[in-house]
Amino acid sequence: MKEKLTVIKVGGKIVEEEASLIKLLNDFADVEGYKVLVHGGGRSATKIAAQLGIESQMVNGRRITDADTLKVVTMVYGGLVNKNIVAGLQARGVNALGLTGADMDVIRSVKRPVKEVDYGYVGDVKKVETDCLSTLLQAGIVPIMAPLTHDGEGNILNTNADTIAGETAKALATKFDVTLVYCFEKKGVLRDENDDDSVIAHITPEEFKQYVDEGVIQGGMIPKLENSFEAINAGVSEVVITSSNDVAAMQGTHIRK
Amino acid sequence: MKEKLTVIKVGGKIVEEEASLIKLLNDFADVEGYKVLVHGGGRSATKIAAQLGIESQMVNGRRITDADTLKVVTMVYGGLVNKNIVAGLQARGVNALGLTGADMDVIRSVKRPVKEVDYGYVGDVKKVETDCLSTLLQAGIVPIMAPLTHDGEGNILNTNADTIAGETAKALATKFDVTLVYCFEKKGVLRDENDDDSVIAHITPEEFKQYVDEGVIQGGMIPKLENSFEAINAGVSEVVITSSNDVAAMQGTHIRK
Repeated sequence: MKEKLTVIKVGGKIVEEEASLIKLLNDFADVEGYKVLVHGGGRSATKIAAQLGIESQMVNGRRITDADTLKVVTMVYGGLVNKNIVAGLQARGVNALGLTGADMDVIRSVKRPVKEVDYGYVGDVKKVETDCLSTLLQAGIVPIMAPLTHDGEGNILNTNADTIAGETAKALATKFDVTLVYCFEKKGVLRDENDDDSVIAHITPEEFKQYVDEGVIQGGMIPKLENSFEAINAGVSEVVITSSNDVAAMQGTHIRK
Repeated sequence: MKEKLTVIKVGGKIVEEEASLIKLLNDFADVEGYKVLVHGGGRSATKIAAQLGIESQMVNGRRITDADTLKVVTMVYGGLVNKNIVAGLQARGVNALGLTGADMDVIRSVKRPVKEVDYGYVGDVKKVETDCLSTLLQAGIVPIMAPLTHDGEGNILNTNADTIAGETAKALATKFDVTLVYCFEKKGVLRDENDDDSVIAHITPEEFKQYVDEGVIQGGMIPKLENSFEAINAGVSEVVITSSNDVAAMQGTHIRK
């Protein structure tokens, strides 16, 4: 029987504010079994880019990453945000190790081909190195993954944190019984976007289709759920979509095979 | 018999200019046996701090690290400089892993006590975790160490790269036959500071004392050599002080037991 592993993805907001970061660190330290944390950092990147006179340009919620922006995200995601989380977890007895995809070649990506939009130095994940990650996990080390990958030719590439979490969960599902947790502002997928307590506890692919047809689920939640079903189909045992304030409780919306 | 390990420290200048960085990456990739790279990044930190409106204040060649400056060095050393080196080495077939002292608790430090000068968030090394580093090395992983440590209470601390290299070399000398290489602008310790070819090939502690008395060796070279003798006394087999352009050749000034 495979051992349990939890891959938790948290967005930029929670790790960039002192109070919510402390709560997250405490909650994450309490998660039992093998675990991986994947973090964002977009708000800090936008703020520091602005201070450096670099304008942040977003298309479909994704950052256009020119050479200067790549420097900013490499600094902010790989340095500032990642190392503060690592130091904070070490203080809580978690043997954290901060990683980008370049470190130990953990995540190799390809620069996104230019179609309608040139996203610049943005990477689409090609391969997650599971042997290395599972060796670390089994040695008691907890990987803290920044949303950066590399192309194997010396270039760091900016990579969506949801994608990193999903691809890592899928890859590790060959070796572990994986629960993938996406944290965001709401308590889960809502039946009524104006009622924070209208969380849909479970969703099947059929219900998802129906909710989309009815307009109950829309916008950014559609790709998030599509990714969740894809993860389940690729061997992940469970996906949980929940609030960043609720990492420990694992409430929210659950998707299972 | 212990296996050979080379700990190479390079300053900020070499890793911050494209051409010299490429040469360093090629040279470092060619170094045989177990190896560790320790890098600086002060020039980039000063530049980016200035762009962010943060004034860099130096005392005795050390950066006064207030809270804002700590953010800058965490970004620049732990993110920008470190991850570019890691990605560059991966492209050259070196399985590099970027580390700060917080990662896997590799280097624990204490905040420097305030005496005449308040250096702020600056750490003095307390302990290097050799078991973890030697396990990584034996697994074929090459640690790339940024000049940052942590206090075990959640704080990153800015730490001199020469010190990190020296302390890491000394700690690993219990398990490996260690050569410690300090790279800087000159070809080695010079007999005549105006003659770049007047490199002193070997120095004993007695000769060092004499050179200092005669004024041949002065300024920042004195602590560098004091650290070198201390490393030798603590079990490091050899210290080499050489040019950043000469990492592969291992020319320069040699100090042995």
